[in-house]
Amino acid sequence: MPAGARAYAGEKRRIEASEDCRPVPARADSPQECRSVAPLRGASDMITAMTHDGSNVRVHTDYLWFETARRQEIVRITDDVARIVEASGVREGMVLVSAMHITAGVYVNDWERGLIADIQEWLEHLAPARPDYRHHQTGEDNADAHLKRTILGHQVMLPITSGALDLGPWEQVFYAEFDGKRRKRVVVKVMGIA
Amino acid sequence: MPAGARAYAGEKRRIEASEDCRPVPARADSPQECRSVAPLRGASDMITAMTHDGSNVRVHTDYLWFETARRQEIVRITDDVARIVEASGVREGMVLVSAMHITAGVYVNDWERGLIADIQEWLEHLAPARPDYRHHQTGEDNADAHLKRTILGHQVMLPITSGALDLGPWEQVFYAEFDGKRRKRVVVKVMGIA
Amino acid sequence: MPAGARAYAGEKRRIEASEDCRPVPARADSPQECRSVAPLRGASDMITAMTHDGSNVRVHTDYLWFETARRQEIVRITDDVARIVEASGVREGMVLVSAMHITAGVYVNDWERGLIADIQEWLEHLAPARPDYRHHQTGEDNADAHLKRTILGHQVMLPITSGALDLGPWEQVFYAEFDGKRRKRVVVKVMGIA
Repeated sequence: MPAGARAYAGEKRRIEASEDCRPVPARADSPQECRSVAPLRGASDMITAMTHDGSNVRVHTDYLWFETARRQEIVRITDDVARIVEASGVREGMVLVSAMHITAGVYVNDWERGLIADIQEWLEHLAPARPDYRHHQTGEDNADAHLKRTILGHQVMLPITSGALDLGPWEQVFYAEFDGKRRKRVVVKVMGIA
Repeated sequence: MPAGARAYAGEKRRIEASEDCRPVPARADSPQECRSVAPLRGASDMITAMTHDGSNVRVHTDYLWFETARRQEIVRITDDVARIVEASGVREGMVLVSAMHITAGVYVNDWERGLIADIQEWLEHLAPARPDYRHHQTGEDNADAHLKRTILGHQVMLPITSGALDLGPWEQVFYAEFDGKRRKRVVVKVMGIA
Repeated sequence: MPAGARAYAGEKRRIEASEDCRPVPARADSPQECRSVAPLRGASDMITAMTHDGSNVRVHTDYLWFETARRQEIVRITDDVARIVEASGVREGMVLVSAMHITAGVYVNDWERGLIADIQEWLEHLAPARPDYRHHQTGEDNADAHLKRTILGHQVMLPITSGALDLGPWEQVFYAEFDGKRRKRVVVKVMGIA
């Protein structure tokens, strides 16, 4: 089993839990508990199927880790993703960049601090932090974070052309944290022809 | 032609129509009519390209069917998708889970009944059911369903690592119905190295 | 390097710029400038890895160009995408359709003029054009366009089954322009077994 991988078996048992598996006070009446995950070593993994003509079909997996200083934070990750794509050796294909935690998002938009502040203020307007969400009856206090990430999206697929991210002139990729100050992950999965 | 497939040819003719092709009273003045689809047998299909080293590049297609009892309903489908991924034999790759009807969504978030109710109430606030949408001049009454699914998203791409869905500890996949009580489909398409 | 491709190197230098790289008055205090892109010849590119059994794993890239007459416009592109898929020869796989400009979106919904007008009005309500966005301190005037495309989404992944787009009976793909009247691009990337 490659580093970073884990078997998903649908079971629900509480774990020692490095990762976003805080004990939740009243979550007992709730259908879900945090699932077991295998130890994460932060290493990446590469699987290749060699084709007849010497080309390779390749799937490369890596993870980005975040532990933001503030509860809400937007972090540019274009270069991190570009580095993983370069390491994969994939020349033509796609890369999935997907937040693995449900109070965080991944999106593509402008790298301009004014707009980033506009986005945060706008999300607060559309999905305000409030005490009276039903979700908070479980002991959680982050329902707004679940909603904010819903508007922004939690994943993007980026095209890879000639061995590099095929982005428009202003496209940048961001990780959007809405309930931070603890370790969270983004999966980066490259698939294509190497 | 594999089961479940159909030729898309851009043509617009009304069909016998099992599937979400109700007659629409005043839709005559509207540019679109329901497209023809081939008979659906509910079976899945698998295509494999054998590579030089014995690995296989594989694309596996299956469909999930829904006919909810209520007009709006949110259904957890993580295990259904996991079963299709397991059946595909794909070890490394991705799976697309995409609603094939435009008044339904597919999203990843928390499996907690309070949050699910919060999401439904919040969508009603942002995209309320109202009589006065222009879309309703066609005889439809579901414009809000089209908008609600827009906020939530209608598809997700899930990474597959070591033969299983590579999800974070709290990630669950949901089908969100906003105009139900009739048969609707989600396509599940697995692609990767087996 | 195939036509239409460009090397992304993370650098930020202003370019001659055919494409959405207007000079921005006060953008000097902003972290980003428009990135360099290689000349675009509008041609498509195809890369194939031949497998042992005569099948091919193929990645095919093409671009759709837009220059709308109005600032906001919604353009149906289902048939354009279908033509690219057909040209690719891919029988089983997926196609990514993604706006390369951050004030435009790509979405799947109904091809009905009433609903299209409803969507535009609804987006104006949720993300109104206003002078007082922080983003406008850079000399831009299009913050609302960045927000509108965020709600609508900027990309979709469409399944390909039996050599054709595997869409539900009412699914149509649209390009949504929120700051038009200049040249903008959508990347269409097909990947699968030919």
